[in-house]
Amino acid sequence: MAAAPVEAFVEALGPEAVLTSEADLREFRDPYSFAGWDHPVPAACVLPASVEQVQAVVRIAGRHRVPLWTVSRGRNSPYGGAEPRVAGSVVVSLRRMDRVLEVDGELAYALVEPGVSFFDLHAAVRSAGHKLWISVPDLGWGSVVGNTLEHGWGFTPHGDHAASQCGMEVVLASGEVLRTGMGALPGCRAWQAHERGFGPSPDGLFMQSNFGIVTKMGVWLMPEPECYLSGWVTVPGEADLEPLIDTVRPLLLDRTIPNHPLVNGPASAGGLGVPDPGRWNLRFALYGRETVVDAQLAVVERAFSRIPGASVGGRKYAGADAGAAGPANDRVQAGVPGMDMLELMLARGGEHAGHLDFSPVCRLTGRDVTAMCGLMRALAGRHGVAYSPGLILTPRSVVHILPLVFDTTSEEDARRAHALYELLVTEMGRAGYGPYRAHVRYMDLAAGRYDFGDHAQRRFNEALKDALDPDGILSPGKQGIWPREMR
Amino acid sequence: MAAAPVEAFVEALGPEAVLTSEADLREFRDPYSFAGWDHPVPAACVLPASVEQVQAVVRIAGRHRVPLWTVSRGRNSPYGGAEPRVAGSVVVSLRRMDRVLEVDGELAYALVEPGVSFFDLHAAVRSAGHKLWISVPDLGWGSVVGNTLEHGWGFTPHGDHAASQCGMEVVLASGEVLRTGMGALPGCRAWQAHERGFGPSPDGLFMQSNFGIVTKMGVWLMPEPECYLSGWVTVPGEADLEPLIDTVRPLLLDRTIPNHPLVNGPASAGGLGVPDPGRWNLRFALYGRETVVDAQLAVVERAFSRIPGASVGGRKYAGADAGAAGPANDRVQAGVPGMDMLELMLARGGEHAGHLDFSPVCRLTGRDVTAMCGLMRALAGRHGVAYSPGLILTPRSVVHILPLVFDTTSEEDARRAHALYELLVTEMGRAGYGPYRAHVRYMDLAAGRYDFGDHAQRRFNEALKDALDPDGILSPGKQGIWPREMR
Repeated sequence: MAAAPVEAFVEALGPEAVLTSEADLREFRDPYSFAGWDHPVPAACVLPASVEQVQAVVRIAGRHRVPLWTVSRGRNSPYGGAEPRVAGSVVVSLRRMDRVLEVDGELAYALVEPGVSFFDLHAAVRSAGHKLWISVPDLGWGSVVGNTLEHGWGFTPHGDHAASQCGMEVVLASGEVLRTGMGALPGCRAWQAHERGFGPSPDGLFMQSNFGIVTKMGVWLMPEPECYLSGWVTVPGEADLEPLIDTVRPLLLDRTIPNHPLVNGPASAGGLGVPDPGRWNLRFALYGRETVVDAQLAVVERAFSRIPGASVGGRKYAGADAGAAGPANDRVQAGVPGMDMLELMLARGGEHAGHLDFSPVCRLTGRDVTAMCGLMRALAGRHGVAYSPGLILTPRSVVHILPLVFDTTSEEDARRAHALYELLVTEMGRAGYGPYRAHVRYMDLAAGRYDFGDHAQRRFNEALKDALDPDGILSPGKQGIWPREMR
Repeated sequence: MAAAPVEAFVEALGPEAVLTSEADLREFRDPYSFAGWDHPVPAACVLPASVEQVQAVVRIAGRHRVPLWTVSRGRNSPYGGAEPRVAGSVVVSLRRMDRVLEVDGELAYALVEPGVSFFDLHAAVRSAGHKLWISVPDLGWGSVVGNTLEHGWGFTPHGDHAASQCGMEVVLASGEVLRTGMGALPGCRAWQAHERGFGPSPDGLFMQSNFGIVTKMGVWLMPEPECYLSGWVTVPGEADLEPLIDTVRPLLLDRTIPNHPLVNGPASAGGLGVPDPGRWNLRFALYGRETVVDAQLAVVERAFSRIPGASVGGRKYAGADAGAAGPANDRVQAGVPGMDMLELMLARGGEHAGHLDFSPVCRLTGRDVTAMCGLMRALAGRHGVAYSPGLILTPRSVVHILPLVFDTTSEEDARRAHALYELLVTEMGRAGYGPYRAHVRYMDLAAGRYDFGDHAQRRFNEALKDALDPDGILSPGKQGIWPREMR
């Protein structure tokens, strides 16, 4: 990279906030890849510490036509981590912007910067003495903002993180700062309390995209319940997946079960605290006054009693005790961040295990889920990859996470996983199953499947990209959206 | 209007679908206004019957540079009805696109066209024999799509209509058709089942805006509950509003009460079926298995017992019976469309009563709500307008609907209401309270209050407008967003 932009970054942010050494930049590479592979090597990494510094970075990049690649904490390992798409990019790491700016105990929300991890947010809420629970994904080291912007999932009633976001501050490619929703109204104190403001809501545009850099985000929290039940349902037979899904769906639609249950096979279930795993295992949670939780549990038990051999169990906690007790299973549904799932993967796959995640979506009916799982299993089997999925349920859909686990010391093993990934995007897409997110190397491929109206979505995104970022400096290629000059 | 575009519309849609007579066009005027007022008179109205016809209309408008003004059913009376902002506009009425395209009984959703009213959708769900409930606003004659696009409210757990929308089809100014979310993936059957697709989600952009014409929309429904309770809480004193709000908030945050309660004064409550109204009255609803509803009701009763003089009551129904029974209060919370609120207004305000609605948002704390209501009451009182609000509650915010009722046969009375409206937008905005939507005449004024960052939101919206609709043909001025040549 030419010296001029680096100098400008150093002048704006200070020398410690501009990394250029090979060692420092190695972090911004797919963590599960090989040195010899074709990596887009970044030219530098900048570490802004404030909104003003993000504005300065964007303006310098615009002036010098340098592509940026923004990561919050960059912990997105199974999807390529912090690796950019274009060689010579300047990675904008937001990890120094790690302040929890506000926790509102009455209205149950937080306002966070993008460097705040789930561990950080959990600690901030606790240390301020609020009786509030956050929602966490399986690993707690990632960024709350980053996870949300990628449509990530947790396992409390606020587990659809994109839907539990309220109010953003965004630095645009022009260097301007936009506040969405009620944040656009000076003096308004409902920015994190009320979804939407006056006029169109752009929040969804800044997720899975490259239209702006989110510098603040509101996130809804839940009150610590009086009572918390971490429950499970096990069924014995392969074919029981269908009635399992069809029985849980009405309980999700009528909110008897208010969180996002996870369905998996025996291998994963064992490590997660289900005492006697079946062929398929569903974990769920109930939260609230104990009388209500008891009444809901009785409804759940009655519903599953229709499936021969099904078993329903659970561990009940006082809400105040849920953080300390129980296996990982119980903590994650109580919004307590951990690293257990990584340890579990290493324990099962070996200390050098890595994985790609392929994550298509389908309708939540027994018929649809069984068909999708059958297809996935067949494709994985043909390529010698174990089929051990985790299904995250919403009331009407399933996100089917299939980790393609491989030995990161075996390039052959890794290449096989990548070949399967590519095949899955293509073949599952052809069958009408699209991924909810994708590994950075397969973003073009995945986006290409969403081609209704001869790629109307791509043209729409490109029109927005050209309007909002005419110099094409923000994360070119992210999600398959390229600026004009790189198309 | 020149003959050429009218001829082109007639050629594309047929002569019956192009209205140009003064009598036919009178419908597209603020229904509560006066003949002598300055009205932007439309040049014509076109009534497309299909997506292809909407595409044809947009292309003709682009060719002839004719501004369009799109309405679904145009029943938005207190906000100006179907009146355009620019004289000579061609109103695009979507009332002929009135098909319920799909009702999915398993996954509890419908796919509708913009001409479908709440009455239509309710009838379609019933006649197909589905045990599903829809969510309805106070009046059932409006469009499901139109209401949703304006951020409208209903009173079941799906009452935040914008949040219960899933998947759109949109005709862009270019004439192209965009499908959002999973609708962009050919063969995918999860379009109405899963929020979001791959990449940025533009759905929020097409609400309260003029970036496209929505021609299909998914809407989530709820299962008919085993048991339904239409409940109320009354408190005796003026100052009890504060503890009323602070007591209900935790019950909303922990989902003991799953719907959107309404708070109002004695006048409205009487008509709505609360047998012995207090100074403030809160209606709410519970839905589910009877054991769970009973447990939840006991929690509600215990919570409000802390307020001296508070009374909790309710009427319990089998879910299957809720449509037929009870006062309007009970039907609207069960998603049964009606016209009772209009009749109530006419009964109270006289047969010529009309109203403007001013609807600011604030935080859901007793302190904040009391402060806002005090301010509104003072401003209304100073202008001799009765203060009789309805507060729609979300778990963290209030939408404060204040109908400014006036005699539509008295121009003086109407002018007073309009003067107050203008004052409220300005003064309440200055105090940090912004409206969630606005009357068509005050859209510029309202949008102007959302001026963070020296009007960053306006510039952002204008950049999108210029990119997506360079000829400025789609609803110029809607929500204060103007195309380049009219700014």
